[in-house]
Amino acid sequence: MLITLTTDFGIQDGYVGTMKGVMARIAPGVSFVDITHTVPPQDVRSTAYILWTVLPYFSRESVHLVVVDPGVGTMRRPIAAQTGWGMLVGPDNGVFSFVWESTPPELIVELANPEYRLPVVSRTFHGRDVFSPAAAYLARGVSLSEMGPQVVDPIRLTSAKMRVAANRIQGQVLYIDHFGNIITSIGRLLWRGDTLCLQPVLANPEIEEMYFPATAARVSVAGRDIGPIRHTYGEVPVGTPLALVGSEGMLELAVNQRHGAQVLKIMLGDSVDIVLS
Amino acid sequence: MLITLTTDFGIQDGYVGTMKGVMARIAPGVSFVDITHTVPPQDVRSTAYILWTVLPYFSRESVHLVVVDPGVGTMRRPIAAQTGWGMLVGPDNGVFSFVWESTPPELIVELANPEYRLPVVSRTFHGRDVFSPAAAYLARGVSLSEMGPQVVDPIRLTSAKMRVAANRIQGQVLYIDHFGNIITSIGRLLWRGDTLCLQPVLANPEIEEMYFPATAARVSVAGRDIGPIRHTYGEVPVGTPLALVGSEGMLELAVNQRHGAQVLKIMLGDSVDIVLS
Amino acid sequence: MLITLTTDFGIQDGYVGTMKGVMARIAPGVSFVDITHTVPPQDVRSTAYILWTVLPYFSRESVHLVVVDPGVGTMRRPIAAQTGWGMLVGPDNGVFSFVWESTPPELIVELANPEYRLPVVSRTFHGRDVFSPAAAYLARGVSLSEMGPQVVDPIRLTSAKMRVAANRIQGQVLYIDHFGNIITSIGRLLWRGDTLCLQPVLANPEIEEMYFPATAARVSVAGRDIGPIRHTYGEVPVGTPLALVGSEGMLELAVNQRHGAQVLKIMLGDSVDIVLS
Repeated sequence: MLITLTTDFGIQDGYVGTMKGVMARIAPGVSFVDITHTVPPQDVRSTAYILWTVLPYFSRESVHLVVVDPGVGTMRRPIAAQTGWGMLVGPDNGVFSFVWESTPPELIVELANPEYRLPVVSRTFHGRDVFSPAAAYLARGVSLSEMGPQVVDPIRLTSAKMRVAANRIQGQVLYIDHFGNIITSIGRLLWRGDTLCLQPVLANPEIEEMYFPATAARVSVAGRDIGPIRHTYGEVPVGTPLALVGSEGMLELAVNQRHGAQVLKIMLGDSVDIVLS
Repeated sequence: MLITLTTDFGIQDGYVGTMKGVMARIAPGVSFVDITHTVPPQDVRSTAYILWTVLPYFSRESVHLVVVDPGVGTMRRPIAAQTGWGMLVGPDNGVFSFVWESTPPELIVELANPEYRLPVVSRTFHGRDVFSPAAAYLARGVSLSEMGPQVVDPIRLTSAKMRVAANRIQGQVLYIDHFGNIITSIGRLLWRGDTLCLQPVLANPEIEEMYFPATAARVSVAGRDIGPIRHTYGEVPVGTPLALVGSEGMLELAVNQRHGAQVLKIMLGDSVDIVLS
Repeated sequence: MLITLTTDFGIQDGYVGTMKGVMARIAPGVSFVDITHTVPPQDVRSTAYILWTVLPYFSRESVHLVVVDPGVGTMRRPIAAQTGWGMLVGPDNGVFSFVWESTPPELIVELANPEYRLPVVSRTFHGRDVFSPAAAYLARGVSLSEMGPQVVDPIRLTSAKMRVAANRIQGQVLYIDHFGNIITSIGRLLWRGDTLCLQPVLANPEIEEMYFPATAARVSVAGRDIGPIRHTYGEVPVGTPLALVGSEGMLELAVNQRHGAQVLKIMLGDSVDIVLS
């Protein structure tokens, strides 16, 4: 039994420890893996991106508990879902929607059955009272359909859209990591020798696969030229901006051995372009 | 075997990893749960509060290792205790005293037996040399009474006192969490319809249970009016201060979707009042 | 099976979670211990010091995964090694060299066998694609010699050198911890009553053991006098600088109950002297 945890609770307080206590009592012997507890507070989109990059590496039997939940205390539904990357438990606010585009949910249910909640449910800490018990019972083998009624209309995020014209691929800044690397919604890109192949992922099912020579592509972000798409950081001097294909296959912007987002003054949502000549 | 860890060691250095190495050698197969390693340095009172909120969710068989220890290298005693929320291991500086008011210690001992310490005890790192071995041997089933002589006069904190007058309940700011929520020593409060029930906890055994209608209560902190006690954050606009009952049942002050403590310029120990009309 | 993790990946992103997913799939039931994920980015020397202090407390069967890897994407070799403190997996950039001076590597190999990598190896995330699979297969019992050819010329760090003259021991600041304690390359020092015994460690095999009375020693850092070597923080008033023997036996400089490195304006590499009179 393996349960991962992804929250915006930070690491200072006892909230995450409390959730693990709840789960360890329900499912003794369970193993915990912390994905992160420091996503920007209530940032559903960044969390959706992180889950999409991390979850493919876990087995179908894993349970992924996610508590990034600006709507706690409102009517938003608590849900759970089975996917090929494991079971998902968290709020119905779109946080799982990038995952679902890669591995469609086989069943989504609302966590409505009081038998799989704590006896008293607070108004402010559903991570402890609703989501943790559900995750632990699922890890113990309780079936999803026991948890509550099916959900057919879950919330889906529409960010991460690309636009593709004859000589231009347009996307946006999707995530900025701890190193300051700037991850964009343009991808997946795959190297085929010196040619790049774009295989659209995330919210772009209607876009077709396309090929272009790397030497014909020029990248810009927020109007600033970043040059061609390179194979590795080491191709430019220290302190120089560059574009490359990140470890997830997305177009990534960076500054060699510097915090790229700070140097380039980039923010989430900034426009990114590849112009083909 | 489950051992939780609560320290002010931070997450940058190897100190916590070292303690886990010591414990994993003594008790192979043990599971670790990190409560937090970033309580404010040497802040015994905030740690006492965190333990009081987190430990109820763990089983009696758990071992809770706590190293927030301004007195390391002095004569303060290293202790261990059995409670209904698990076994406690740490310095005798009051850090367990809020826990003990909810679940009285069945036995407290001084960790004096050199058999359950590392062979060499440094002057500066009792977490590694004294507390970790004790926690691991307790997790393995060594009995508390083997560890050393009974302690009958442990240190107890006296903060968290409330004062209750005819039309006023007075307490103080006890803890500020990662979100900026301001947790006070006034509690526990329980909603009974639109009436609130105050059931004193922490250092307030002499105060009697009392009831008051929510509409009759007006909250202030450090002299600033915060309004009535509300059910949920969503009752006020974004950026507006409010008072509500927190997830632990304590009176909590916050600013909706903002860092309340920064917006309201609140510090630990600030005075909090409920005036009843 | 126990795998420790030491990286500069930070705790915000999903990189560490991804590596644990890779390992948990290859070695189900493995336990993870995080040493730290917040060493200063690409700081190989601080990481080498942390490993040297933490790893002695783990058993020979442990696997230690280290990803502090400024050379990722270049020709630096990925390696693994068996030592008395466990198996080491990481880049060949000197990060293990302090460990090797205490527990010489029995065998070092290059992680060249594609059978023990992920099917596709990215240019930027060898932690996921190369090091994590190797660590997990080693934890499962695959022998080191299966992983690739022997390495006989690994990179070794030469910092941490001491100079010893008739009445002077000279070293440098090696590490600054979370509390602001300043750890130096002068050590190990052992108390023998009121006499100190210097038993050289780290990169100093040619220096001989020596003894001196504590009262005859005077410590300075970056030219500033810090006074004699003391037994414990409590010997000086709050806010006063002092020198003492740290928990690892290295000469340590601190300011009682303050952040010493900030108060004394100390940086890594600053010169430290003991003058004997």
